[in-house]
Formats: sequence, C-alpha cells, structure tokens
Amino acid sequence: MEKIVVDLMGADNKPEVLIEGAIKAANENSDVYLYLCGPKTDLEKYLKDFKNGNAEIVDCTEQITNYDKPVKAFKTKPNSSLVKGLNMTRDVEDIKAFVSCGSTGAVLVSSVFILGRIGKVRPALSPILGGKHEFCIVDCGANVDTRIDELLDFAKMGKAYMEASGVEDPKIALLSNGSEPGKGNDLVKEAYTELSKMEGYNFIGNVEGKNILSSDAHVIVCDGFAGNIALKTIEGTALQIVGGLIEYGKKNNCIDVIMKAVGEIMNKFDYNTKGGAVMLGVNKLVIKGHGAAVGETIYSIINQAYKLSKNKLIEKIKDNLNG
Amino acid sequence: MEKIVVDLMGADNKPEVLIEGAIKAANENSDVYLYLCGPKTDLEKYLKDFKNGNAEIVDCTEQITNYDKPVKAFKTKPNSSLVKGLNMTRDVEDIKAFVSCGSTGAVLVSSVFILGRIGKVRPALSPILGGKHEFCIVDCGANVDTRIDELLDFAKMGKAYMEASGVEDPKIALLSNGSEPGKGNDLVKEAYTELSKMEGYNFIGNVEGKNILSSDAHVIVCDGFAGNIALKTIEGTALQIVGGLIEYGKKNNCIDVIMKAVGEIMNKFDYNTKGGAVMLGVNKLVIKGHGAAVGETIYSIINQAYKLSKNKLIEKIKDNLNG
Repeated sequence: MEKIVVDLMGADNKPEVLIEGAIKAANENSDVYLYLCGPKTDLEKYLKDFKNGNAEIVDCTEQITNYDKPVKAFKTKPNSSLVKGLNMTRDVEDIKAFVSCGSTGAVLVSSVFILGRIGKVRPALSPILGGKHEFCIVDCGANVDTRIDELLDFAKMGKAYMEASGVEDPKIALLSNGSEPGKGNDLVKEAYTELSKMEGYNFIGNVEGKNILSSDAHVIVCDGFAGNIALKTIEGTALQIVGGLIEYGKKNNCIDVIMKAVGEIMNKFDYNTKGGAVMLGVNKLVIKGHGAAVGETIYSIINQAYKLSKNKLIEKIKDNLNG
Repeated sequence: MEKIVVDLMGADNKPEVLIEGAIKAANENSDVYLYLCGPKTDLEKYLKDFKNGNAEIVDCTEQITNYDKPVKAFKTKPNSSLVKGLNMTRDVEDIKAFVSCGSTGAVLVSSVFILGRIGKVRPALSPILGGKHEFCIVDCGANVDTRIDELLDFAKMGKAYMEASGVEDPKIALLSNGSEPGKGNDLVKEAYTELSKMEGYNFIGNVEGKNILSSDAHVIVCDGFAGNIALKTIEGTALQIVGGLIEYGKKNNCIDVIMKAVGEIMNKFDYNTKGGAVMLGVNKLVIKGHGAAVGETIYSIINQAYKLSKNKLIEKIKDNLNG
C-alpha cells in the first residue's frame, strides 16, 4: 500500500473542491492510503464517500498562500497543511509521497527544509507536458542560476523520472537556441560535451523553442530560468490563441464548433490531466500541482504519486546521482 | 528619398517570388528607391513593373544559404547578394538601409563585419511581435552570453527602435521567471536595479513568459538565449495548436470554419505582415525577414525600413547609447 499525504489547502480552489479528486482516486485504487491535510470541520463530512475507508483527515488550522513569503511562512505556520503534511511525510517512514497545489515557492522551500536534499543535489521542479509524447522539462524554475554539474544532475534525475513514469531508455535533450550541435550559451555548450560522454544516457542533442512540443525528447534539460520562460511561454501563447478563437467564434456565430475544437486540442496541453511538477532531488516524493487545480488535478497527481512511488523514483534518482 | 538595398536571394523562395513585394512597395511609394540584389537575367523582365522607375537591379551571381558557414561565406562569396548588397550599403552614403531574408547567421556576421558596430555595442536581433499591441524583444539570439552593460544597451536600442516605429515613451520590461520585483537570475536582478535608476526610460518591471503576448511592454529586454527560446516557443506552440485544429477540422467536417478562424487569429501573430527583425547596433539599418518570406514579407520589411529610416532610427540609437 502506498501512503500519500495530500495538502488540500493553499490552492485557488477550496479544500471541498479538491477533495473530490481524492475521493475518486481512493475509490478507484484500494492500494492507496491518503492523509488529507485540511480543516477537519469542513472536510469530515466527506469521509463517508471514501468507499474503501482508505483516507483520514489531518486537521490543519493554518494556510500558506501565495502572499506569504516562503521562508517566513514555513517558520511561522507550523499548523499549516503544508508544514504539518511535510513533517508527517518525513517522520512516518512508510509515507512515500506528498502532493500539494499550494504556492510553488513555499512548497519548494518547505520540502527542502523539512525533507532534505538527496546528497548535495540542487532540487529541480519538473512538470510533465504533452507533445509528440509526454515529456518533462528539468528545471522549470527552482534554480535560476545553474552550474554545469547541476545541469548534469538534472539529466540524471530526469532520466529516473521518465523511467519511473514508464518510458524505457528515455531520450534526453538540451534546450538551446538552435538544434544544431554547437548552438547554445557557454553553459549549454559545455553540457552538450559532457552529456555526449555519459554512458547509459540516450542523449539526442539540442532542441530549440520551436520544437519543444514536437521533439522526440522525453527529458528536456535546461537551467531553471530558461525552463521557466519556455514553460510559461507555451502556456501564455496557448491562452492567447484560445482567447482569440473564442472571441472569433462569438462574433461569427460558430462558438459551438470552436469550443469543441479547442476542447479537443487543449486536452493535449492540459496539465490538469497530466499530474503535477515533481520536486526532483528531495528525499521523498513531492508533487506540486497547478494553483488553479480542480478535483481532476488532485486525482491525477495522486495517481502520478502512486505510480512514481510504486516504480521507486526516489531510489532511481539516488542510483543515478551516485552512479 | 530613402534608398534601400534589397537582398532577393538566400531565402526559401526564389527572387522572382520576393520581387513581387518590392514592386508593390515601390509602386505605392515614390519616395523610396530600391537596389534589388539578385541575378539580372532572371529579374530584368520585372523592371517594367516598377511604374515609378524607382528601382534598379544589382547583378549578383552567388548565393549564401543556410548551409554556408557565416564567416566563411562572407569571406569567400564577394559576389553574393548579401556581401555585395552590404558593401554597397556601406559605400554609398545616402543608402540608408539593407533588407534581407537570407541566413540569420550570415546576415548577422556580414552586417557587423561590413557595416561595423556603433561604438563598442554588441548588436542585437529584434523582431516585432503582435500582442496586446506591437512590441519588440531585444535580443532574440545574436548574443547568447550577455553581460549587464549589454542588457542595458539592449534597453537603450529597444527604446529608440520603438520610438522610430511610432510609439511615444515606450514601456520597457525585463523578461524574467516571474513578474514580481526580485524575480530573475543574477543578471536580470542586477538589470532590474539599473533600469529602475535610468532617467528617461519608462521601465515597468518584469514580464514572465506567460504574459509576453499580453503585457503592456513595448520593449522586452533579455539575453539572446532566453529571447530566442521565448520567440521560438511562441512560434512552436502556435504551430502545434494550429496543426491540431486543422486535423480536428478535417476529421469533423468543419475545416472551413476552422480555417477562417485560424486565419483571423494567426494574422495577429503573422510576422510576414509585421516586417522583420532589426539588427540593432550596426552603423546602418539592417532588417532580417523570415527565411520563409513571401512577396508580402519583402513588401512589409521595405515599408518598415522606409519608416525607420525616415524616423532616424540609427541616429536615435547613437543618441541613446551615448546619452
């Protein structure tokens, strides 16, 4: 049985909305056990919906929001769902994973402080995206100034991550300003040389912005600054196009057709159905879902946590970093 | 009269396709005079179409392609449209501008070698994009490792660029991994502090990837590596979505509706109608259009060159860099 702590606070939606996803996940999978962190008074009434009885509530009276400074919040809100949930994750040996849709900064800082890093690795934030196939970008913003050894660690952790996600011999690429070898800033050029030499790593070269969503890569390695810009630019561009299409549809009496088309296409890009970003490099599995999470998001990140835990992601990361 | 050199070779399409745009531009504006660089034998028959007689052909027998190494090409192909055209631009005092849709690397290298830089500035490549309003990104790939003083020069040149494009007191932003002050890698954080202090610059703070297309900024300043990734990620995401929509339309018998909607929306993002990327920082105006240019692209970059030249872009850049 995989025991997972679920932080139901700190997202845009209320715990009562998010718990729907936990109910669905727990009812579909009796091999999962959930510790639901949130206000007991509001959530208790939902316990009867867990048909397998595989969930309990961890009463939390404080909330950390996007307005809290991450370090301060972690220190001053011990009864928050985030801090209490992470403490529990650290202290109970057979709890394998912690999932949250709260403030990215707070989840990052608190995970590192409470769970600790694997060796001296710099933890990285890595979401799954849907393109030609599902792939991850490591790092998407945990480290904005990255050294070469850290970039290589990202490749090692990304490989473990995609293997634990079910991909055999994942293809690894570097995000660069052109796909040709020799393209890149100093950091990327050095990483290119080093990755080419790493045995057991299926390094396929550079991928440029234009091809992020259409490349063969399963792991796209980059510094957190570039990765954050790439990830958010994908999101922003999609939003602009969809917004424009909807406006067009309304003006031209074809909104039904447009909405169906958009719905179908965007499903591919919808992070709600693809789980969350994994905090690679901390001692237990931590998954951060989008702040605008709905029940479906929680459902998918619980499933993702179950799968990655079953497939021993943390052990694989440790092996790769030490290998 | 504004004299402009037009390189009709090196793009994906033939000179005979691109010259259509030159004809349209010259016929609409008798205050422009065009030097058309390309093979005389193929192009001569089009001269009769220039109703104002404001064009002549500069016979060029060699072509520089994307397969040529920029530095080598520049040295070994003196009769190419690129090298011959740039030499002419340098040597004839009242030629104000050079436009090309050839290889970016070759245009970059040859411009700097032949026309020279303004002072010691690092030239930057800056395209115009359509979002909330038209805006430029400086730099988009000419400099992949950028220092703080160079980033500030990009802001100075970007301001001149948008002013010469007709924007009063352009808003200037930094591309970062979050919109809040304090976000950014070391370079961006330092640039934030410096830009905040620069008098006469309407600095509005950070813009993140998600908001590139929806921000208030007229100038987005970034190192060329991040800028290249942002620009190409916008392009790649748009292509993926449009491709998906067309596929959906074909499958679901609504391709006509979809194509009309896509056509309308993408017009906003269409670089063919917005001119090309300006090589900011060289001694004369150089505009690089997209390699997949059609006649309409040439038409729009000639108009862009005319406007920027009339509005004294180069002089404005010199003022800002020395100010």
